[in-house]
Amino acid sequence: MQQLPPQDAVFLSMETQELPAHIGGLAFLNPTPGQAFSFDSFVEFIRNRLGPCERFSWQLREIPFGLDRPYWVPRENFDPAEHILQIALPAPYSPEALSKLVGRLFERPLDRTRPLWEMVLIEGLPGGRHVLLWKMHHCLMDGASGASLTEQLFDPTPDAVRPAAAEFTEADTHPVADTHPVADAHGVADAHGVADAHGVADAARIPGQFDQRAIVERALRNAAELPRKQSKYIGEALRGAFSAWQSDREPRKASETSSLAPTAPWNDIVGRYRGIAWSAVSLDQVKQVKNTMGTTVNDVVLAITSGAVRDYLDERDQLPEASLIASVPCSTRIAGDKTLGNQIREFAVGWATNVEDPIERLLQIHKSAAEAKRKADDGTSFDLIGMMSEALLPGALQLLMLGAAAAGDKLPLPANAVVSNVPMAPFPLYCAGAHIEQVVPISLLAPTQGLNITVLSYCGELHFGIVHDPSLVPDAWDLAGHIPKSLQQLQQGVDRELTLNSSGAEA
Amino acid sequence: MQQLPPQDAVFLSMETQELPAHIGGLAFLNPTPGQAFSFDSFVEFIRNRLGPCERFSWQLREIPFGLDRPYWVPRENFDPAEHILQIALPAPYSPEALSKLVGRLFERPLDRTRPLWEMVLIEGLPGGRHVLLWKMHHCLMDGASGASLTEQLFDPTPDAVRPAAAEFTEADTHPVADTHPVADAHGVADAHGVADAHGVADAARIPGQFDQRAIVERALRNAAELPRKQSKYIGEALRGAFSAWQSDREPRKASETSSLAPTAPWNDIVGRYRGIAWSAVSLDQVKQVKNTMGTTVNDVVLAITSGAVRDYLDERDQLPEASLIASVPCSTRIAGDKTLGNQIREFAVGWATNVEDPIERLLQIHKSAAEAKRKADDGTSFDLIGMMSEALLPGALQLLMLGAAAAGDKLPLPANAVVSNVPMAPFPLYCAGAHIEQVVPISLLAPTQGLNITVLSYCGELHFGIVHDPSLVPDAWDLAGHIPKSLQQLQQGVDRELTLNSSGAEA
Repeated sequence: MQQLPPQDAVFLSMETQELPAHIGGLAFLNPTPGQAFSFDSFVEFIRNRLGPCERFSWQLREIPFGLDRPYWVPRENFDPAEHILQIALPAPYSPEALSKLVGRLFERPLDRTRPLWEMVLIEGLPGGRHVLLWKMHHCLMDGASGASLTEQLFDPTPDAVRPAAAEFTEADTHPVADTHPVADAHGVADAHGVADAHGVADAARIPGQFDQRAIVERALRNAAELPRKQSKYIGEALRGAFSAWQSDREPRKASETSSLAPTAPWNDIVGRYRGIAWSAVSLDQVKQVKNTMGTTVNDVVLAITSGAVRDYLDERDQLPEASLIASVPCSTRIAGDKTLGNQIREFAVGWATNVEDPIERLLQIHKSAAEAKRKADDGTSFDLIGMMSEALLPGALQLLMLGAAAAGDKLPLPANAVVSNVPMAPFPLYCAGAHIEQVVPISLLAPTQGLNITVLSYCGELHFGIVHDPSLVPDAWDLAGHIPKSLQQLQQGVDRELTLNSSGAEA
Repeated sequence: MQQLPPQDAVFLSMETQELPAHIGGLAFLNPTPGQAFSFDSFVEFIRNRLGPCERFSWQLREIPFGLDRPYWVPRENFDPAEHILQIALPAPYSPEALSKLVGRLFERPLDRTRPLWEMVLIEGLPGGRHVLLWKMHHCLMDGASGASLTEQLFDPTPDAVRPAAAEFTEADTHPVADTHPVADAHGVADAHGVADAHGVADAARIPGQFDQRAIVERALRNAAELPRKQSKYIGEALRGAFSAWQSDREPRKASETSSLAPTAPWNDIVGRYRGIAWSAVSLDQVKQVKNTMGTTVNDVVLAITSGAVRDYLDERDQLPEASLIASVPCSTRIAGDKTLGNQIREFAVGWATNVEDPIERLLQIHKSAAEAKRKADDGTSFDLIGMMSEALLPGALQLLMLGAAAAGDKLPLPANAVVSNVPMAPFPLYCAGAHIEQVVPISLLAPTQGLNITVLSYCGELHFGIVHDPSLVPDAWDLAGHIPKSLQQLQQGVDRELTLNSSGAEA
């Protein structure tokens, strides 16, 4: 039994009915000819791989009134099979029908009385293919560790004989304060950080039995420390945006929001439904663009999505004059760190949707991203998740989120949409012996951000998963279709640059 | 906004992870040839029928620490479509595959943050048929009102043009104390009953806004009254069984349990999985047996299930010497009462599984059922649900149920299995224009009762729905197969009786 570290707990407290906080993905499985792939063999495979992974057998023990972060307790007689369902896609097959079913399955929140993950194996695709949909609560893992988990579940060869997921036993991954102080993860090393770290260490020492008294005492001590923590963050760092979040009474003034994002059509109150659309492009082509222009893969991903969003909005006469702003989560994880909890922070990057020329757009994004990173390293940027995890009790955060979700356009908008980029394997993978042809990442939506584009690199391709509220992004498959076109425009821009440069050199 | 009446609230407090407290059913839909039956038209149909029904848009507001019964609050922007999913059955079709899928869907608890019902339309059955699975929390309705709800949702003609479910608007169904005092529903009319009735009236008077102070005051007043209520029930009526429920420390002594049930294989700790099997017999044939032998339909249903259970256990050398005991829920509803909440009590009836001769078995059951009914009318029987709903705060009841679910064989067993019988329509019904060929009722399991047989009469047939924990009843389809055989044995017994009587008359 252990208490959730602050950053993991944020993803529970943030969750509202309209904004469930699980992440997931779709894997398109093509069973090898002659292979006895079945639902039962799949369940047995997952049982072998997740069985040794304590984290997948944990369930929550929440503290009344949200006075403290919840605890993880092991589920008795845990069986992964309980979390795996087999269904088929209604006939006739179409990508839209699959997308619709996946959206309906994904939008349902996870059951908080059980370990916080689910899998659905969907058959009924052409050529005997299956789709595996998985949902995992964000409090269990972030995108980067989620991707390494899928690497762990997926194999580099079709014969799934390698031993179970030993790398992920919790002996290695205990998020205990002594080895991973909360303060360090957030880049905030000060006296308060040390005090928090001790709090976590206390919690880790609580024995296996659920000791009601120790837990209540800790909750009350936490409550007593709240004003000091809040004054630190609210008073010093977050005056502008945060005080506006607290009150939805004062009308927003245009002059006050000049440093914030303009409004895109999906920046409205997010409802309960989710749509999923997807697209893929060649990673080699992205790397060519990156190398020629001296940018990063992340920059090119932002430029591709920027072009697609720009064209999509332009076609509908909805493109704002000012540039949209993308929120880019980045892992704060040290290379080789295989822990499963959350180690992320988000940067606001100018998306340059107001720039017509694709190369110019890419260069502006490159500049804006580098600037955001520099600010973060200086400790001067707005780190919402870090702030929330330390400054607020879960109950207070929940109330804040309910207010934020309901207040809608009365809030200042730190960014228009999240664009996230997660690497997976560069080589083909297999799951229970079936070849994984494609993986679509599925992320979560934030208050007044009805669009999230998460990108995953796998086997020489970048796979774009577009999660959205279908009432706010009614034609997401159109948007998906603009993604390869946008890369094409970038490629043409690069070719033009090369021609210009070479003709310049010739001149 | 209103507070749940005590009997409805019991079904929430009773719920544990292993014992979700929803009920439901399967309807086999055969779209009329040429009819444009589709998922979308089905959703539209349900939207029209359930939209005007306030109850289906309510969600829970639970009171911290279970200090009072929860409240119903309307869900904002409620759309029935949110609760309806379309999937297909994995190929190839078999009744076992359908049963397995339905069990996996049914065993999942309902999401307590949303209105407490769900529907899944399953395609992939032979001949273009669909199966509709529905799940409704027992706190929303009991079996009898559930059946009249299905009548309301289902039409007597294929053309679904009749107006929406006006009969079920909550104006008619407010379970307010003035019209349906709690005390009356339980047949306990005394000074305490009146006090309870006032409590409910108080709650109903709380205005639409969630008034935190009034609710907390009420919760504390309730807590203060608890010892008096508990002493009334525990002290006077329930000394034996109830005190044993409270403690799992003292080993059970055979002499103490002589009046209780023997142990069947499924009377063990119930797990998380559910299996569903079904069977049907002719209602005319049941009525012939009933009329000839001067019993009730209920008696014949108990005799059929008794014979099936007897043969099933006998084949496995597991038939106890003493008769098993069936728990038979009966509606306490006055004829014509169309309210949707719970108005039931349970009777323990000797199931006569130790009697080999089918006619002798039927007559013993008839006698035992009449005796149980007489005791209940005297007010001397053990009314567990009534007791629990009035004597215990929800939080205390939840703790009690967790203890009961975990204690397993250390508890006295009031009955071996629930056998319930609910009437539906005698004529063909249609749903969104599709003919309903068959309806399988699905009920819930109780602690240490891993088997429930619920029976529904529809269109000249009795449909038996066998819900079970598959680890405790591994061959439920065998048991289902014994049901028509058991009626056959009864019929043969009746024929023999008639022959004997007529030869006696001739002699």
